[in-house]
Amino acid sequence: MNVKLTLQFDGTNYCGWQIQKNAPSVQGILMDAVGDIVGREYTITGCSRTDSGVHAREYVCNFHADENLTVPLERLPYAINSHLPKDIICKNAEEVPSGFSANRSATGKRYIYRIDNGTFPDAFALRYAWHCKYQLDTDKMKRAAQYFIGTHDFLSFAASGFSVKTTVRTIKAFDISRDGNIITLDITGNGFLYNMVRIIAGTVMQVGSGMTDAEAIPGIILALDRGAAGITAPPQGLFLWEVFF
Amino acid sequence: MNVKLTLQFDGTNYCGWQIQKNAPSVQGILMDAVGDIVGREYTITGCSRTDSGVHAREYVCNFHADENLTVPLERLPYAINSHLPKDIICKNAEEVPSGFSANRSATGKRYIYRIDNGTFPDAFALRYAWHCKYQLDTDKMKRAAQYFIGTHDFLSFAASGFSVKTTVRTIKAFDISRDGNIITLDITGNGFLYNMVRIIAGTVMQVGSGMTDAEAIPGIILALDRGAAGITAPPQGLFLWEVFF
Repeated sequence: MNVKLTLQFDGTNYCGWQIQKNAPSVQGILMDAVGDIVGREYTITGCSRTDSGVHAREYVCNFHADENLTVPLERLPYAINSHLPKDIICKNAEEVPSGFSANRSATGKRYIYRIDNGTFPDAFALRYAWHCKYQLDTDKMKRAAQYFIGTHDFLSFAASGFSVKTTVRTIKAFDISRDGNIITLDITGNGFLYNMVRIIAGTVMQVGSGMTDAEAIPGIILALDRGAAGITAPPQGLFLWEVFF
Repeated sequence: MNVKLTLQFDGTNYCGWQIQKNAPSVQGILMDAVGDIVGREYTITGCSRTDSGVHAREYVCNFHADENLTVPLERLPYAINSHLPKDIICKNAEEVPSGFSANRSATGKRYIYRIDNGTFPDAFALRYAWHCKYQLDTDKMKRAAQYFIGTHDFLSFAASGFSVKTTVRTIKAFDISRDGNIITLDITGNGFLYNMVRIIAGTVMQVGSGMTDAEAIPGIILALDRGAAGITAPPQGLFLWEVFF
């Protein structure tokens, strides 16, 4: 039985999804919880690595279980939650076709990046936004965002340190809005390179601050050089929002 | 010079405003920070005690300083923030008439209490809402809220353990709204007794759950007996939202 789990987690206290030595990971904690409940350890496949400190409103993962799970599927989230720390929550468990893989079957992802643009930080956004005290011009940021939409080689927006077959990705939508001091970057694509959303967020912030022209974005993309793009925005503003299959 | 400070704080890590032995308080940390900056310790008066774990979107306090503060008033928030932990933020400093007292001059306060009414907790509301998994009927809660408005003896809604001259208070407004799974209780009054907002929130939650009739509220108020009211809602859902002078 192929079991798909949907999670939500506050990433503040974790090194990300993937199991690492000497650091608490969401995958490791979840595998321990499921192991405690069903009596044997399963490898659980996630829809993506997430960086240390990054959040997930919706995270999808799956594992191939014996037919006789000791817990009925509809009760599994409650059982798992009773074995998880409070900041990782299993919201759904369902059976999916055997060919389904949370990683390989994903056709796209939507990320939200939040910037707190108040003069002083919002105490309640400290864990969930990047505080930028210099007034950002969201009109410029919106203009910059438009240049990312489409299919491009995003090598300029990839951190080094991992290997992929291609650095070409398609951004389907990139909306920017402001509600009071909170600026929300809402970006959907067929896939994202390592740190790609955070480097895009850092670059677009620099456009908003006037440090970079919105019209410089096409040239930065064409440069195929990480050094051409802006800074990597910190992890606490980033949320994996939705995964498409 | 009478200096009024406006703060915001995430109360998760504090025992409340008031200095206590062996527990970190907002007042104690702020007095240390101001002392570090201006070179002597001032007693800082707060607009209210807040309970352990309760938040403040806007908290007002004041202290009587020597005329020659070592820092210009408009720079004082920045200086104070550099000496404060991240979850306590000074947002404003201004001179006020010598007779002003954050405590005695306050004419009213507005509190927000947030309930997370999803089947599973929202990972990002864990610190900022009370999770109630049973579906709450906000129409019933709104009916209950109406009975609190006006001038009443609120002894039934006061925790024991502190002394006041009178337990009569006036509730000026009490609005309840739902946005997705988050139910917001928004209550304004001329003053509140110890734990009063949390006991009202717990009682109104019980009305929403069907455990108590909305129409029972007038009788609970008239009982003048803490045992007649509902449970005390936990602190993490409560925000001191605004202080009126």
